[in-house]
This record gives sequence, structure tokens and C-alpha cells, in this order.
Amino acid sequence: MAKKATKKAAKKPAKKAAKKPAKKSAVKAAKTSAAKKAKPAAKKAVRRAAKPISLHPLIDKGVFRKAAPKFAGGTLTCLCASDPVTVSVASQSAHNHACGCSKCWKPEGAVFSIVAVVPRDSIKVTANEDKLAIVDSSATIQRHACKGCGAHLFGRIENGKHGFFGLDFIHTELSKDKGWSPPEFAAFVSSIIEQGFDPAQMGAVRSRLKKVGLQPYDCLSPPLMDYLASHAAKLSGVRTA
Amino acid sequence: MAKKATKKAAKKPAKKAAKKPAKKSAVKAAKTSAAKKAKPAAKKAVRRAAKPISLHPLIDKGVFRKAAPKFAGGTLTCLCASDPVTVSVASQSAHNHACGCSKCWKPEGAVFSIVAVVPRDSIKVTANEDKLAIVDSSATIQRHACKGCGAHLFGRIENGKHGFFGLDFIHTELSKDKGWSPPEFAAFVSSIIEQGFDPAQMGAVRSRLKKVGLQPYDCLSPPLMDYLASHAAKLSGVRTA
Repeated sequence: MAKKATKKAAKKPAKKAAKKPAKKSAVKAAKTSAAKKAKPAAKKAVRRAAKPISLHPLIDKGVFRKAAPKFAGGTLTCLCASDPVTVSVASQSAHNHACGCSKCWKPEGAVFSIVAVVPRDSIKVTANEDKLAIVDSSATIQRHACKGCGAHLFGRIENGKHGFFGLDFIHTELSKDKGWSPPEFAAFVSSIIEQGFDPAQMGAVRSRLKKVGLQPYDCLSPPLMDYLASHAAKLSGVRTA
Repeated sequence: MAKKATKKAAKKPAKKAAKKPAKKSAVKAAKTSAAKKAKPAAKKAVRRAAKPISLHPLIDKGVFRKAAPKFAGGTLTCLCASDPVTVSVASQSAHNHACGCSKCWKPEGAVFSIVAVVPRDSIKVTANEDKLAIVDSSATIQRHACKGCGAHLFGRIENGKHGFFGLDFIHTELSKDKGWSPPEFAAFVSSIIEQGFDPAQMGAVRSRLKKVGLQPYDCLSPPLMDYLASHAAKLSGVRTA
């Protein structure tokens, strides 16, 4: 009795042991197969996540050079290979920002412009002025662009009543000089949709802008909006100061 | 020698003790006086800090009633003591927000309007329709206001191409019914300056709005700006969907 029982007991574990490995290895095989399929997908996802949305070469780089102390301006040059328009700017730039509007000049392929202002008195065209033409003379900002390459050398406000009268808009990326003030915020962000940008990607756009330190607005930044509103209030007489 | 030394020693502490109290009490007196002057000033400062800037009765209250589940609308009534205009609204409101623009109706003394939208088909004037007149027929939003008390009962967009065509603007504070959707953000905040508001207080305004849960924007909220831009893109053919 004892011997039989022992033999039985000896057989049972062997059978169980035989079953377990088969089941285990089937499960393991299935897992390994799934894992193999998942790996490339996960890698793809990581690659997709790792590549930020492209907005402008400088924004894509993600880091902006700081303003140089006592920087007093430099030279802007259009993109023509020969006889470029050159403009000397005798001032550091101010209010540099990314702009999503449809009017500001952008380098080829960029979704945003990067634009700043300087006093108009600091601007002087130093070569090939005859290549410049105003893009749209009915616009508030008269954009003086090169007829050859299309780059905007400066945008000037001629309306004396405008809050920004006295300031010219420039694109410091057209200057080889280093030390211009870096962009500080992003304006008219929603406007990129009006130029064909996919609305479904706006979350990624705003995240990217915030990540590189450019708080996104769908108009100008609050201080500039307040400034324009104050100017309008003075013009209309609602406020005296 | 010992006796003399002891006497001297006994005198010195006495003298020192005599000087210390005098100096101490003078300092103490000066401190007490300064403290007395500081107390009312501190109290005033606390009172000043405690009273938030007044923007609109509902914003000043600081807490908004939640939307009631399955709320299906209610009745708007103008502010006339007799023969008020009444409008039935067969829909919950949407996109309720504080608005700083100069066109939206505000209760007496308010800096901001609180305004929402409902489908135009849900609006029906139920009494004293003859008291209504459009404030400015050339405006995008045709504001139907009571000629008696000035309250706006609804603002309608008649331009079929507008992104908000099909929606009427209403002020749910003109309804005694409870359960309308609460305001979600603040729009056109900088525009209050154009109506005479002190620019120096804009920091306090934006802080207050954020504190009560109304993220401030100087245009509309990003989803609404994106929606309008998408609509413009479809109209211009830049996007098909």
C-alpha cells in the first residue's frame, strides 16, 4: 500500500511538471512575441515624442543667446547671394517675440516669425536701397522687403497716432552680429491656423513655445496690450495720463 | 583694600543699573511709540489688502454657482420695475465668461460684463418685445436692448459667414433661475483701460480674475481663438476640414 501510494505520488508530480513547462513556455512565447512587436512601436513612439514640432529654426534649437551687455546694434543683410540690401541699426532691439500672424516675414518653412522693434531713427539703409519695396502700402506696418529674396528689412509705422509710431520692426536673425535681445513671448499664436496650420496640433505648439520660454498669447503680451489700450484711452480723451 | 574694593564694586553695578534702565526705557518708549504708529498703518494695510478690486458683483463674491445637471434653460428679465421684457431660453448656456470689452452690457458700476451663448433657436421674446431696440445695427453682434433700462436681452449675429453664427449672446445674471453654467475665463481684459480703467491697477485685476478661477486673456480663450481661426481658414480655402 505504501509502495503503491509512493509510486502514484511519484507519477503525479512528474505529470504536473510535464504540463507546467508546456503551458509556461506557451505563455512565455506569446509574451516574447508581443514584446518583440511592442519594442519597435515603443521605439517609434519615443522617437516621435523626442522630435519637437518645428516652428522656426531658432525656436527649434530651443535655446536663445542672451542679450550682450551694452550691445549697441549691428547690421541687417537680406538673403540675396549678391548685391544684398544692408541696413545699419544703431540700437539694441526691444520686445523681441515670436509672431504667428500672416504678415510678418518668416524664413522658408517656418511657422512663426521672430520680430523685434528699434527706434526708427536708428535705422539706415546702407546698400542697395533700390531693391527694397513696400509689401503693402495700405497696411499699418509698411514692410520694406527685398524684391530679390523677399526678406523684410524693416517695417515702419507711418500713422502718427499709432501707439507704436516711432518704432521700426526688424528681424534680428538677418544680422550676423551677436548680442541682440532674445525673444520673450509668442504673439498671435492662433493665427497660424489661418495660414493652413493643423488646428489639432495647437496643443503641441503651445507646449513647445512654453517649453522654450515663450509664453503663448493669441494677441500681444499683456504689457503691450495694456500699452496700446492706454494709448487709445488717451487719444479718445477717456484718460488724460 | 578688600572693603574699599567691595564698596567700589557695589557702587559700580548700582551706577550701571541706574544708567541701563534709563537707556532701556528710552529705547522702549521709542519702540512703543513707533509700534503705536505702525499699528493703525498695518491695520489699514490689512484692510486695504483684504478688500479685492471690484470688477462685477458676481466676480466680487468670488464663488460661482455650479451648473445644474440637466439644466434646460430659463427666463431672462430686464431691469424695468414695470412691464419688463422677458425672454425664454430653452437651453443651458455655454462659454460663459467675463468680458472687458466696451460693447457688452454690464450692470451699473461693473468693470466687466458676464456673458454666455445659447443657440439662437432657443431664444423667444415672451413679453414687451416692443421695448427692445438694437444698440448698433452696424456691429457684428446685434444687441437687442431694453429702451427703458438699457439691459441687453440677447446679442445676435446675422452674418452667416461668422464663426459664431447661430449663437446668441445672453447675460444669465438677468435670470432668476439657478443652474446656468458659470463663467470659465475672462476675455478682452486689457480693453477695460480703453473705457477709463486705471492701467496701474491691471496687475490687481488679473490677479483677482485668476484667484476666482477666470484665466485672463486680452482676446478670447485659446480654444475659441483657434475655433475662429479654423473657421477663417475654411472660408478662405486654406483648409478643407
